[in-house]
Amino acid sequence: MTDKFTFSLDYSSEECWGRVGRIQTRRGEIPTPVFMPVGTAGTVKTLAPDEVKTAGASIILGNTYHLMLRPGTGVLDHFGGLHRMMAWDRPMLTDSGGFQVFSLKKLNKINDEGVEFASHIDGARYWLTPEESMRIQRSIGAEIMMVFDECCPYPSDEKTARAAMERSVAWAKRCRADHPHLRNGQALFGIVQGSMYLPLRLESIKRTEEIGFEGLAVGGLSVGEPKPLMLEILDGMMPHMPKNLPRYLMGVGTPEDLFYGVERGIDMFDCVHPTRIARHATVFTTEGRISLMNARWQLSDAPIDADCSCYACRNFSRGYLRHLFKAKEILGLRMASLHNVTFMINLMNNIRQSLIEKRFIAFRDQFLGRYLDKENK
Amino acid sequence: MTDKFTFSLDYSSEECWGRVGRIQTRRGEIPTPVFMPVGTAGTVKTLAPDEVKTAGASIILGNTYHLMLRPGTGVLDHFGGLHRMMAWDRPMLTDSGGFQVFSLKKLNKINDEGVEFASHIDGARYWLTPEESMRIQRSIGAEIMMVFDECCPYPSDEKTARAAMERSVAWAKRCRADHPHLRNGQALFGIVQGSMYLPLRLESIKRTEEIGFEGLAVGGLSVGEPKPLMLEILDGMMPHMPKNLPRYLMGVGTPEDLFYGVERGIDMFDCVHPTRIARHATVFTTEGRISLMNARWQLSDAPIDADCSCYACRNFSRGYLRHLFKAKEILGLRMASLHNVTFMINLMNNIRQSLIEKRFIAFRDQFLGRYLDKENK
Repeated sequence: MTDKFTFSLDYSSEECWGRVGRIQTRRGEIPTPVFMPVGTAGTVKTLAPDEVKTAGASIILGNTYHLMLRPGTGVLDHFGGLHRMMAWDRPMLTDSGGFQVFSLKKLNKINDEGVEFASHIDGARYWLTPEESMRIQRSIGAEIMMVFDECCPYPSDEKTARAAMERSVAWAKRCRADHPHLRNGQALFGIVQGSMYLPLRLESIKRTEEIGFEGLAVGGLSVGEPKPLMLEILDGMMPHMPKNLPRYLMGVGTPEDLFYGVERGIDMFDCVHPTRIARHATVFTTEGRISLMNARWQLSDAPIDADCSCYACRNFSRGYLRHLFKAKEILGLRMASLHNVTFMINLMNNIRQSLIEKRFIAFRDQFLGRYLDKENK
Repeated sequence: MTDKFTFSLDYSSEECWGRVGRIQTRRGEIPTPVFMPVGTAGTVKTLAPDEVKTAGASIILGNTYHLMLRPGTGVLDHFGGLHRMMAWDRPMLTDSGGFQVFSLKKLNKINDEGVEFASHIDGARYWLTPEESMRIQRSIGAEIMMVFDECCPYPSDEKTARAAMERSVAWAKRCRADHPHLRNGQALFGIVQGSMYLPLRLESIKRTEEIGFEGLAVGGLSVGEPKPLMLEILDGMMPHMPKNLPRYLMGVGTPEDLFYGVERGIDMFDCVHPTRIARHATVFTTEGRISLMNARWQLSDAPIDADCSCYACRNFSRGYLRHLFKAKEILGLRMASLHNVTFMINLMNNIRQSLIEKRFIAFRDQFLGRYLDKENK
């Protein structure tokens, strides 16, 4: 396995800011734009790695916060990293732990050095700093690591937003110092902050870019703000993002978000949404989301989505899947999760193809027309 | 799909009462002796049908009690039976609902006509009779149906045991009258009762055999009695069981039970034990059961069982599986279930082979020597 990390652009759309490219890593290629399923605690919830592969995932996420608490870096080091432990041989990306830590209620102390918090598992106290986050992410061993940043809640006043942005820049520098280019064979991405204040966002882009990273992420969006505001901020930011780096919109998306992000020039997406709603019986179809618990499917012979190639859609009716959810059978959670992950990845593949074939806008309007129309009923 | 149900004996051991044969059904062959995984509510818990096939299952069970309550015969009829609904194309066996109903606390009324009970789901009242059990089992559509019987608890006095046996014989006659030979293409097995009283057991064998069934089951064992007592009853019964019919020991077994039953001439076994203990992190190995929650596996690189060919053993260490159980990840339940089902089926395949190769006793002593030795530590 040779250290490698390159990003190349194959095609830039003339219809929008969308672009098509590929990230080459030591564990294989990631075609972009890409949707990355989330494997919170060392598994994409309910799914086996071969199923995630069959769904077409070229990269998955791991969560530093969860993995540092359990199994912990001692165990991860023993097993030679998370890839080997969880039998996943394709690329992986880890967040920094910052987002989860700042979302915790039991945040004991925060200063320029780092953050002290209590574990949600046993209340034990932990310190997380930029350097500690780098150390943990090296134990996990993902192809792409993220800088430790401060993500402020929505809404935040400008003073709070600036302070968090300044601290994020300072921490980004410490991360880069601790983790130079491809140390341990792993790339490191910077994160743009600045809440909903475009001037702060632009300053953050400039100062983060200057530090020098292998990719640049947009953090602090989809944190509770109205969607039009998120898109407005993206509209203002994206022309200023460096073109030669992969751009990652953290914690986004839904099917519609993939279109909104791609047309603004985003290359990478991740979200727990598809697997989380699946475990509550909600699944994607080209005609909007449906709940498999709904009584109307009791006698339905139809698959979740007739166009889908996943195991659930090839073998099971909505009627049977409804039965599984009513009977609280784990196979129901599995099949809904498998379908939603497959749906997101197939949708992104279709988006990518539509960009190349210069019909992205038509595809977007056709898809969202059907999907959102039914959603809003 | 042509109606077909035959049982043929290929080999009778000279070392013990064990026998090797095959049941031919409209949905394929079942080599015997066989272990049948239980698919309580239309799914072998946590597993997809392709996984159950890969584990080597030639037949699975469905539970009439659970399936009559949910999804109910209206839904089953709509889908053309459980096979099609759950995408299982190999043979299936259904119990009669009697065992579960008699285990219920909310048993409202029992008389010679049948049993009234309240659903554990919503408290709704149901009547179950021999004819109703036949009707429901025809809706489910298994290759093998079971007569509706009364299974008495352990311990029961002789008078109670005789009354239950007499009622079971009377109900067996009504089942046969309602469901003649291969009606709807489905075979029907009788069930021997008589609690721990050998004379009652022998009388039950004779009177049930006389009614004429496609197979004969031993019910009312493994209901709380000491294992030596169960084996003593089997020792007394088995020489009197008809040789030309498949013999099914209901609700048994553990790995050791497979040996105990096979050497006494049992052809078919089923039990929720392997999948139930799996969901509590207990898995089979050739050196006894282990708990994957045990701290000693935290850094273990070893698979559950080095000789096992299941997906879990080919891909995951005990250390990773322990992590999944600690983190309450569903993949842990799946992998432990898959392993235990695979283990039971592989063990039965090895037992079958050892019978044919005239080395059953040696194999039994070697396996149980290792398995029980570690179990008892």
